[in-house]
Amino acid sequence: MSSNSATNITWHGHQVSRAERERLNGHRGVVLWFTGLSGAGKSSVANAVDGLLHARGVHTYLLDGDNVRHGLNNNLGFSAADRSENIRRIGEVARLMADAGLVTLSAFISPYRADRDRVRSIVGDGGFVEILVQASLETCEARDPKGLYRKARAGEIKDFTGIDAPYEPPLAPELVLDSDLRDVATLAAEVVTFLERNGYLAA
Amino acid sequence: MSSNSATNITWHGHQVSRAERERLNGHRGVVLWFTGLSGAGKSSVANAVDGLLHARGVHTYLLDGDNVRHGLNNNLGFSAADRSENIRRIGEVARLMADAGLVTLSAFISPYRADRDRVRSIVGDGGFVEILVQASLETCEARDPKGLYRKARAGEIKDFTGIDAPYEPPLAPELVLDSDLRDVATLAAEVVTFLERNGYLAA
Repeated sequence: MSSNSATNITWHGHQVSRAERERLNGHRGVVLWFTGLSGAGKSSVANAVDGLLHARGVHTYLLDGDNVRHGLNNNLGFSAADRSENIRRIGEVARLMADAGLVTLSAFISPYRADRDRVRSIVGDGGFVEILVQASLETCEARDPKGLYRKARAGEIKDFTGIDAPYEPPLAPELVLDSDLRDVATLAAEVVTFLERNGYLAA
Repeated sequence: MSSNSATNITWHGHQVSRAERERLNGHRGVVLWFTGLSGAGKSSVANAVDGLLHARGVHTYLLDGDNVRHGLNNNLGFSAADRSENIRRIGEVARLMADAGLVTLSAFISPYRADRDRVRSIVGDGGFVEILVQASLETCEARDPKGLYRKARAGEIKDFTGIDAPYEPPLAPELVLDSDLRDVATLAAEVVTFLERNGYLAA
């Protein structure tokens, strides 16, 4: 304790950098942005990837409707502006989590190209992996895990992506996964292989 | 590939839990919420704690004005409602980061008790450590690292905490750090000791 401590609190130490956090983790921070129709398999594949990575000691976090809509975005509705702000906030949180050194998985329909492109620019090139999970509308509607397509067809839900609202597929996604053709485990392994080949799983 | 893979994409695997992430990290996820006047030393102490923890292999992330105001909260101004929403969003992000298993440090003035109490309830009891960093207004004004007090006194900034806006100190903070009496290194060590004694640094 000195009189100096009272008049100058500025900390002259070293600030922990992203590179140092990545070194501690043994891998890079990155955002894996899954996009696609409801029922295409985004959450299933993202969860499977999360499990595979965690089992290898990779530090991960999965952002999905369960942990975001009722928390950070609980003051947003379903207007066009609010949907856009929903994706923007998720993108900003994903950026922070990647900066923290985590492999951050996000599983939201995110139907609009402009919204996803904005997230790509928020996260920064090289740290954003856009993954289209595709299946035919017929397949998605047949799966209908939450009964949402049935409600949309019955007019009980409006502006439902694929029924009465558009889905704009990415023009140049880093990965395309087809859940009409492959099962979840196979698709998840494809993602892990992509991350390995592109150096994301080493610091 | 089977017809089954197309009609049932539901993933029956295991979802990675918070406890599993904490086990991988070797410590708990927790929110260290630093609060206090501008110039009291919140950022300096939080950065020093971040450095000490990182050096021990603890997985940390520091939320501050630099990485939040220009990103997640760049569409918020300085009205009473926007300030409150600013703290709410930071609290929600801190909750997600603690859920990800990180020791999450937050360094914002956060002058209103109601806003901080809301964050405490968002994060959940046991995972929220409120740390009052205190120094007399005279000390803070003498330090004035960003020249903000000078501007507030000159009337160039309005509603500045401590000058023409109130600071409501916590009634029952987990820790009180006095930067009038102790230097940054000493205060940072106090925080680490608190975390050790309360079991946060073991999984």
